[in-house]
Amino acid sequence: MDPVPDLCVLGLGLIGGSVLRAAKAAGWTAWGATKSTQDAADARADGFDVAADLDEALHRARQADALVLLAVPLPAVDEVLRRIATIHPTARLTDVVSVKTPVETSVHRLTPDARYVGGHPMAGTSTSGWSASTATLFHNAPWVVTVDDDQDLAVLQEVITLALATGAHVVPATAAEHDAAVGRISHLPHILAAVLAAVGADGGPLTLALAAGSFTDGTRVASSRPELVQAMCEGNRSALLDAVDDALGRLGAARGSLASTGGLAKTIEVGHEARQALDSQRTAERTEIAIDLGSKDAAEALRALGARGGRIVSLDGTTATAQTS
Amino acid sequence: MDPVPDLCVLGLGLIGGSVLRAAKAAGWTAWGATKSTQDAADARADGFDVAADLDEALHRARQADALVLLAVPLPAVDEVLRRIATIHPTARLTDVVSVKTPVETSVHRLTPDARYVGGHPMAGTSTSGWSASTATLFHNAPWVVTVDDDQDLAVLQEVITLALATGAHVVPATAAEHDAAVGRISHLPHILAAVLAAVGADGGPLTLALAAGSFTDGTRVASSRPELVQAMCEGNRSALLDAVDDALGRLGAARGSLASTGGLAKTIEVGHEARQALDSQRTAERTEIAIDLGSKDAAEALRALGARGGRIVSLDGTTATAQTS
Repeated sequence: MDPVPDLCVLGLGLIGGSVLRAAKAAGWTAWGATKSTQDAADARADGFDVAADLDEALHRARQADALVLLAVPLPAVDEVLRRIATIHPTARLTDVVSVKTPVETSVHRLTPDARYVGGHPMAGTSTSGWSASTATLFHNAPWVVTVDDDQDLAVLQEVITLALATGAHVVPATAAEHDAAVGRISHLPHILAAVLAAVGADGGPLTLALAAGSFTDGTRVASSRPELVQAMCEGNRSALLDAVDDALGRLGAARGSLASTGGLAKTIEVGHEARQALDSQRTAERTEIAIDLGSKDAAEALRALGARGGRIVSLDGTTATAQTS
Repeated sequence: MDPVPDLCVLGLGLIGGSVLRAAKAAGWTAWGATKSTQDAADARADGFDVAADLDEALHRARQADALVLLAVPLPAVDEVLRRIATIHPTARLTDVVSVKTPVETSVHRLTPDARYVGGHPMAGTSTSGWSASTATLFHNAPWVVTVDDDQDLAVLQEVITLALATGAHVVPATAAEHDAAVGRISHLPHILAAVLAAVGADGGPLTLALAAGSFTDGTRVASSRPELVQAMCEGNRSALLDAVDDALGRLGAARGSLASTGGLAKTIEVGHEARQALDSQRTAERTEIAIDLGSKDAAEALRALGARGGRIVSLDGTTATAQTS
């Protein structure tokens, strides 16, 4: 394949820091910048190339024709895009923010000349900051790459190349499909964990003394930093509302059935089958197919791949090798 | 302390099998019986003493003046109690069923002459049957022992001795307190896991392909055998309804806040504090106190111990050593 581009990472927390580590480990020329003096000092102490500030990092990106990766929390995205619009308005741009429609909207509004392909690596820990970052955070994780009909092929190739270089596999989806999915499997779990933790603690010390695996597992993500969870969930408001309404409907139906007939068979059986669907999909045999990213129906083929749970596992020029079950 | 009694375990699934293994490992004379030919064969193959049937096991219990432990699922409790009423109506009796009020009611109705103290070891796995049982299942687990004002002291001592011999610690509570607590920290987690799994699977293969730790953890117990979960949850109908209503109220409030102001701060912060309360209680320094099980206010002292999250960790005659934070 073509030589990889240089990489400019804006934001050096857990995710941005891990991308910078993984890219450098894969042989890329990469540098970063962050507003956090702590993260900057930690990254420099670990031997990484950290620019004096965001503007300097962007000037270097323009000179080197680097891929620019936005790795700041959603509330900081607009401010960074305004700097990009000023210093390097035609940047080849991607991001790792946990919601995609709001970022896409901001990019179209604030940096309309940027060549943008959205991304979201689905990995994390309950810790944060550069000190929590690792080069292996994305190994075997899905990395969503957004696919539109008018996508820039060169940027799409570069973003896929970066994701694969970190050890992730690539799941193509539209921004709206991504947001609907993460509302269900990432943001709703945080809301339910918070609700479950509160209902348990309401029972007092005896109740918490009896908590075993089901409660500990079900509330684990309530340990995450609340301000990060809040920003992530609130940023996906519309899709999360759909997921919460679905959960309220199902929980209300369980309540009604328990109160009237005393029966919970349907709730529990449907939940059991759903969980088995997850396990089946994870262990299913996969067949390999090739997708030419340069063909005119590539966007459609990529969206269809993602919709049936498939993934890109390697890329050679414009030829992607995909696995689908 | 006094010599331990013999032990007769009725039901040799995961819990009954693990009690039989742990009791034998602790030097007790113990035998079991089960309607499952598979569990009976597996237990015999592992070198355990399995009676030909329930009736034979109960005849031996009467002759040996053994403690009888009921380890069958709730729907099978009445049938077994009727055999006890016929063969050994004055048995010293305990159980390991996951709800306490319904068992207590059945015991009073079907075996009014039995000397009964309820129990519930809070341990389990998502597998079941004798083949899943281990002698160490109850290590460091809470084992609830029910405490009433008219409790039989000798049986209370024996049940506490058995629980401690398996490596568990003993949490005293009334049957109603137990059922309210497990509704919140054991049964509600199963309902929420089922709801979350269904909402995720509704999103289709793309959604499941993006599932990471928060969804996998939050749906783990939906892998459990649905008929066991159903029996457990339905058996605790009244207390579970309270817990589900509390969850519905909190989830509905989160929904309303997200829809109106877009804010989730309260839901997420309260959940975070609640989860920290669990961690704090688990790591709190404990002080030791002594409780004389033979004193006239022992029941009150035991219930107060359980209510503030305390536990019995050893027993010498009628003197229990308890830890409280």
